[in-house]
Amino acid sequence: MDSKQFRECGKAVIDMLADYYDNIRNRNVLPSLDPGYLIKSAPENAPEQPEEWENVLKDFSETVMPGLTHWQSPQFHAYYPTGGSYASTVGSLLCDGIAVMGFTWIASPACTELEVITMNWLGKLLGLPEEFLNCSAGPGGGIIQGSASEATLVGLLAAKDKMIRRLLENDPDADEDLLKTKFVAYTSDQCNSSVEKAGVLGSMKMRLLKSDSNCKLRGETLKKAFEEDKAQGLIPCYVIANVGTTGTCAYDPLYELGPVCKEENVWLHVDAAYAGAACVCLEYRHIIKGVEFADSFDVNVHKWLLVNFDCSAMWVKDSYDLINAFDVQRIYLDDVKSEVRVPDYRHWQMPLGRRFRSLKLWTVLKMYGAEGLRSHIRNHISLAQHFVKLVRADERFVVEPEPTMGLVCFRLKNGDKLTKQLLENLTAAKEVFMVACTYRSRYVIRFVICSRFTTKEDIEVSWNIIAREANRLVCPSVIGKSQSISTIDFETVSICEKSK
Amino acid sequence: MDSKQFRECGKAVIDMLADYYDNIRNRNVLPSLDPGYLIKSAPENAPEQPEEWENVLKDFSETVMPGLTHWQSPQFHAYYPTGGSYASTVGSLLCDGIAVMGFTWIASPACTELEVITMNWLGKLLGLPEEFLNCSAGPGGGIIQGSASEATLVGLLAAKDKMIRRLLENDPDADEDLLKTKFVAYTSDQCNSSVEKAGVLGSMKMRLLKSDSNCKLRGETLKKAFEEDKAQGLIPCYVIANVGTTGTCAYDPLYELGPVCKEENVWLHVDAAYAGAACVCLEYRHIIKGVEFADSFDVNVHKWLLVNFDCSAMWVKDSYDLINAFDVQRIYLDDVKSEVRVPDYRHWQMPLGRRFRSLKLWTVLKMYGAEGLRSHIRNHISLAQHFVKLVRADERFVVEPEPTMGLVCFRLKNGDKLTKQLLENLTAAKEVFMVACTYRSRYVIRFVICSRFTTKEDIEVSWNIIAREANRLVCPSVIGKSQSISTIDFETVSICEKSK
Repeated sequence: MDSKQFRECGKAVIDMLADYYDNIRNRNVLPSLDPGYLIKSAPENAPEQPEEWENVLKDFSETVMPGLTHWQSPQFHAYYPTGGSYASTVGSLLCDGIAVMGFTWIASPACTELEVITMNWLGKLLGLPEEFLNCSAGPGGGIIQGSASEATLVGLLAAKDKMIRRLLENDPDADEDLLKTKFVAYTSDQCNSSVEKAGVLGSMKMRLLKSDSNCKLRGETLKKAFEEDKAQGLIPCYVIANVGTTGTCAYDPLYELGPVCKEENVWLHVDAAYAGAACVCLEYRHIIKGVEFADSFDVNVHKWLLVNFDCSAMWVKDSYDLINAFDVQRIYLDDVKSEVRVPDYRHWQMPLGRRFRSLKLWTVLKMYGAEGLRSHIRNHISLAQHFVKLVRADERFVVEPEPTMGLVCFRLKNGDKLTKQLLENLTAAKEVFMVACTYRSRYVIRFVICSRFTTKEDIEVSWNIIAREANRLVCPSVIGKSQSISTIDFETVSICEKSK
Repeated sequence: MDSKQFRECGKAVIDMLADYYDNIRNRNVLPSLDPGYLIKSAPENAPEQPEEWENVLKDFSETVMPGLTHWQSPQFHAYYPTGGSYASTVGSLLCDGIAVMGFTWIASPACTELEVITMNWLGKLLGLPEEFLNCSAGPGGGIIQGSASEATLVGLLAAKDKMIRRLLENDPDADEDLLKTKFVAYTSDQCNSSVEKAGVLGSMKMRLLKSDSNCKLRGETLKKAFEEDKAQGLIPCYVIANVGTTGTCAYDPLYELGPVCKEENVWLHVDAAYAGAACVCLEYRHIIKGVEFADSFDVNVHKWLLVNFDCSAMWVKDSYDLINAFDVQRIYLDDVKSEVRVPDYRHWQMPLGRRFRSLKLWTVLKMYGAEGLRSHIRNHISLAQHFVKLVRADERFVVEPEPTMGLVCFRLKNGDKLTKQLLENLTAAKEVFMVACTYRSRYVIRFVICSRFTTKEDIEVSWNIIAREANRLVCPSVIGKSQSISTIDFETVSICEKSK
């Protein structure tokens, strides 16, 4: 493909994407196909000769597109959002287009420097304490990691290294390997799988402590766990606080966990992957009250701040903790020497390679502006509240726990089995996509506002589909008492449907 | 930005990129600025209100572009290439544009399935044994990781987990933590920094064994190291063979290392980050002779196969080794049940999140075809050979070691100090970018063919610049004896320059 063909093909793709979003409501959010649909039909070998770009795009439309789950559809309410916006796509396109690497300053100066700038901007927008910012006098700063998983693991490894150094300072003859086997990490039983996985990957025991009835990990619980473990000769090393759990978007109180960690010199990492984004609005900053106790803080800009995956923004109070843990020097990799504080980001992360990811953060921050991001957050939260009203108006349902941010958890009053059946039927119908979690041992359905296109009308469309499927399981009652229907009792179902 | 504006802006960026490449020879490969150039001049805060896209693109051209090191320039000869092509940019644009995630099959079926397909295609193109492929009957398969760093670490963690399981099977009462402290990883002293870092990150002692005079790690050396360590009660666990070292592109003989590993049940990982790509051509496959002994194999498609970073293709013989090491289950993450073997890739990698990275591999494989990729490799190698001829025709220089693939190492005969000075002067002149390495304790300059645009004429341009700077340091001699000139002896330099 030469530059002339690229101009044609690239522009065709731009139009294809714009058309896709202009018409996204015409598609079911979930695809209708069985596992192996593409594997079974694909050619066994790559083509020997080049194919025309027109054919490749046609192939994309005909074979790949039908196999997508449409995360940007207004009827996508599963997991948490994955970011996407035209502004971000433009930034990504610039990044991929120029195809530079940024593992050292000289490898592409703008790549390092724009990351410093945008991470300062974003840190300020979120109201992070100054110590976390590159523009402060201290050794703090922000870096873009690939995912919250990576940030949690980076924090764990840095915490391990820092603790070892501290212990060896006190007792230079101690057995480093033996000490490491005694380190313990702590988080709540509500943590994301990636948090637990960080313990597996980083070879550190991880205790999933019992959260309270509101799914929060409390200071007292942590303190008790520290004491139990110390009594057994173990060494508390790393705590991951969840600000916005994956299940119910609960917030661990940093102002309780922080002082406990501080007393024991334990690294406190804040995983605010989804909810942290809301801190761009002053009125939601209370969720990170106590963040000044944290050693590291992570928010997935690629979740709720309109930037495409991957862009996980991580700040640390002391970047030397990362450098000490990760620095492996080579003759062909020069550190930068400078009066201005310019980080060598490769020492702040696990891999050597670095894309110019700050470009998409930059285009989003500039093309939306701070106000645009705040509007986006507030709009999603108000849409969630609209959904709550719709659910609460239907007496067959319970909304619980109390909804927060863009997440609403709900269930049928008539029990877990029916709620589960409802979700299965909805998934089978392909029109709305949600996933489940457990809350106080009950099976609840999670409804998340995900798409940037979602309107009040879209929420009503989703709700009507949910209510329609509920009608097949539970009779809508006029007098306030719902009646459960067996899912295979088709006669009753049809009666029930007629009675509408 | 609405879809109408995106159509305009996106197309403007496409043209901007095509213009960039059409005129890339007009730019110096290295930027002329000091560390902090952008940080110092950037606004302190993100804008409150949205900026027009036209202004953002203008800002990009005026502030970011001057801060780039142009990796796709024909005068970029540093490190190893980072992939880039119009075909790949189209694939990336589709991936970012549709903005789906692929951590489970249902999260976007095409995302998982196209990865299976393209990794089968690529594995076949490289001539990997069938056991490594998803389409074989066994548990092998390929996955796209973010970088060779990540692949090396994934291999290490899987090796550790597998070894622990094996040891506990033999002795269920053994102390797992204690066993882990005895594990040792091995690689050569020529390994990339990322290999050494994997040991740091994965908490495993790593021995950098002495390579032979051709920079290869030999089977005998490895065997001896195993024996030494076992005698001390340590447990050999993981070996990383380098196929194409970063310094001089040396190949560790897999056919020697493999049997040694096999005898001790030690995991053999092959880091073929750069050179592995050449296996698309039958005539270069000898470099992976013995690959059938490997447990995992990695090649950075984003280096030499025209795909943009990040796309590191990793194959394993037994995917259950990864799943056993990495599986952390959750209610909201369903594994796929299917007759066709469809992997749950999130258990094959460290993070949970997954982009649709196979799209760019797919567009490259289709738009270039196998023949296109082979031509690209052969063209780069023949350009390197042309450069060798030019250097060898100048008696002031030595080419060593014997060049291989797209890498040529060379030095001035007159000593390391002058060679180093030459590289410094060339870097200061900004027209050609190369980095150094050491070979047999000598300082040598690495010249790598990187850009897909490079022609024979471009090589001559680069060489002429090198020769010009050499003339300022060492007189070109007519009678075959070079004369060294002190770099500060400007009088002699000018005499020397006049004598040309």
